[in-house]
Amino acid sequence: MEKRRIYMDYAATTPMKKEVLDAMLPYYNDLFGNASSVHSFGRGVKGALDTARTEVAKLINAHPSEIYFTGGGTEADNWAIKGVAFASKDKGNHIITTKIEHHAVLHTCEYLEKYHGFEVTYLNVDEDGMISLEDLKNSITDKTILISIMFANNEIGTIQPIKEIGKIAHEKGIVFHTDGVQAIGNVEVDVKELGIDLMAMSSHKIYGPKGVGALYIRKGVKLHPFVHGGAQEKKRRAGTENVAGIVGFGKAAELARVNLDNYKNKLISLREKLINGIMERIPYTRINGHRTERLPGNANFSFEFIEGEALLLSLDMVGIAGSSGSACTSGSLDPSHVLMAIGLSHEIAHGSLRLSLGDSNTEEDVDYVLEHLPKIVERLRFMSPLYEKVAKGGK
Amino acid sequence: MEKRRIYMDYAATTPMKKEVLDAMLPYYNDLFGNASSVHSFGRGVKGALDTARTEVAKLINAHPSEIYFTGGGTEADNWAIKGVAFASKDKGNHIITTKIEHHAVLHTCEYLEKYHGFEVTYLNVDEDGMISLEDLKNSITDKTILISIMFANNEIGTIQPIKEIGKIAHEKGIVFHTDGVQAIGNVEVDVKELGIDLMAMSSHKIYGPKGVGALYIRKGVKLHPFVHGGAQEKKRRAGTENVAGIVGFGKAAELARVNLDNYKNKLISLREKLINGIMERIPYTRINGHRTERLPGNANFSFEFIEGEALLLSLDMVGIAGSSGSACTSGSLDPSHVLMAIGLSHEIAHGSLRLSLGDSNTEEDVDYVLEHLPKIVERLRFMSPLYEKVAKGGK
Ligand SMILES: Cc1ncc(COP(=O)(O)O)c(C=O)c1O
Ligand SMILES: Cc1ncc(COP(=O)(O)O)c(C=O)c1O
Repeated sequence: MEKRRIYMDYAATTPMKKEVLDAMLPYYNDLFGNASSVHSFGRGVKGALDTARTEVAKLINAHPSEIYFTGGGTEADNWAIKGVAFASKDKGNHIITTKIEHHAVLHTCEYLEKYHGFEVTYLNVDEDGMISLEDLKNSITDKTILISIMFANNEIGTIQPIKEIGKIAHEKGIVFHTDGVQAIGNVEVDVKELGIDLMAMSSHKIYGPKGVGALYIRKGVKLHPFVHGGAQEKKRRAGTENVAGIVGFGKAAELARVNLDNYKNKLISLREKLINGIMERIPYTRINGHRTERLPGNANFSFEFIEGEALLLSLDMVGIAGSSGSACTSGSLDPSHVLMAIGLSHEIAHGSLRLSLGDSNTEEDVDYVLEHLPKIVERLRFMSPLYEKVAKGGK
Repeated sequence: MEKRRIYMDYAATTPMKKEVLDAMLPYYNDLFGNASSVHSFGRGVKGALDTARTEVAKLINAHPSEIYFTGGGTEADNWAIKGVAFASKDKGNHIITTKIEHHAVLHTCEYLEKYHGFEVTYLNVDEDGMISLEDLKNSITDKTILISIMFANNEIGTIQPIKEIGKIAHEKGIVFHTDGVQAIGNVEVDVKELGIDLMAMSSHKIYGPKGVGALYIRKGVKLHPFVHGGAQEKKRRAGTENVAGIVGFGKAAELARVNLDNYKNKLISLREKLINGIMERIPYTRINGHRTERLPGNANFSFEFIEGEALLLSLDMVGIAGSSGSACTSGSLDPSHVLMAIGLSHEIAHGSLRLSLGDSNTEEDVDYVLEHLPKIVERLRFMSPLYEKVAKGGK
């Protein structure tokens, strides 16, 4: 097999679809006006924002008036959490989240704890990355104002029991935010059916542009604005609208909705082939994340006796792009907080590899990975002093 | 003269330069990777962010390490003010700003007053829109932690004595933030020479894309992050980088720096022709803003006995795009807070028109406006009952 160039890092970011760029370009050219302007240069622009809003709403079964565009998924998470926290100070100061949230949620919660007098419970997860609903119930106090639990994990793909969480939250009158960044466009997300109050979304994970996202705010949910200023987004999120970016996000949402079933089924089938193939071919390997309640495109392995960065570089040399943790933490030497939370030791967490599948991937890509990855792992293991013992003495 | 289509709303937003879009497109195609990724798809991307950072830094004589990209000018203002406020709570709770700030500053300050225990002094301005340095000095207390005074006003164009403000702030050890959104690319801005600690910038006012901006943070200035999450921007501003947008901003900054003198001189000459022509041709007219300490492209008039929205619509019908206040407040019926602050009555403020000049404007454009605007003002005035009296009886 000749050398290929295979992208399996779709959970970090996705390439933009051609239709998305085509939809955006007019707003970088003739239709450059400010959406707030009354003259002819601004006129077409408002309608374009409305169309995009409708498409994002449709993807998650919301009403368009419940969609507020932001500068990305991270901003949406910050807004949801800080917005509810500051607006509900009188009611209480307790927030519940989990140990496996994205840093956009975790670091926001830590900041509120450290500087603004809030108290945060970080729920444990089991070895599959699942929270316990009992734990959740038990951690609620009469000071609890917000439950923030992610829909699907970006590293290990585990999908939480969102509907049940929503029910528990609402029985106690607590606002429920979920980080839906990895979920939308990959699995069905129906905010009404699931009882979600707030949900963060990001465009660049669903083949739209980077630097644009949205917060779903169920009608009636009270939270402070996060970015103050002009009257954009019904006075809830200030700043001149990133018109082209929003239009691109809208187009990406439309395509994601229309293709969802095919996309999902294709990814599940490729993922299973990949996971089963790796588990058969490489000993001393663990698959991380829930085996079935998981994102269609996510595969996450821990290879014992191996260093993840070395593995990534070797894969890169044969043209395979993967990730050793979440993209945001790559480059840091700490082991992933998610892999720690599911109980892996430092050593094993360090030998982890996330391959996240998407649009361009084929059966041949998976075959290529199944051919090269075992050889690379074997080569790296033979350089490891720890592995030598095992290879000689058995485990 | 036949009908034209003339854009004179450059202070609201600018069309993107062709070179800017050309610079961005590769990052929407092959170079789509996440800047945090270690594999080949992410590799070129970090360098592109560095180049853009260097260009933005050069435009304002900062060091590249002092430039932090944001989702726009509004976010940069929010960050500067909330970031300093929350980080300096122990030192004091007093902020000084002016009555003519953009809403990104004003509403942020109001929010801190209303919900977070801060006290804000809103300095008056004189009839030209200038603050008084004496007032500023007198308003400082030992609780003052931040002075936030805009570089140049978006409605009336007045440029504040930034260097003197910086000096006053630093004599007292107070952090000085300036909203430089309208200034950069239009006048020389040298943060070192002017003693600026923090400065908000926006890409879409200098022929770059919307939805991207930056905060200049002088080395050593302490402020909290505003958007928490991943380790981007040296852990000070989280969120997957809007790579294409940042690259576009960088290219726009480069072009702005190279062309600054020509651009400025061209705009000043067109502006003077426009202002003088209007003042000669239209009676009962006031020019708002400082006559010389003003943005090169800004002209702002108040026409007595006229309603600004009607004027805008009539201008639009002959193809001229202007603005009746800042773009963000258009659509609201309140008179502009800036025009109120310089002492205009409600009636006169309502009859205001901002024409802001830019790249595409020519002498012929100005001639066209000088031909049509007086006729439109006259027609509208003849429909006004108030004007009838004046026309008949003198003023
Ligand atoms: C003076 C001033 N500050 C801040 C802003 C906000 O910047 P942005 O449009 O990037 O949100 C603007 C423009 O709307 C402005 O003119
Ligand atoms: C689960 C999750 N939440 C939040 C984010 C942040 O979104 P963005 O990249 O738009 O800042 C990401 C991606 O980085 C993510 O995977």
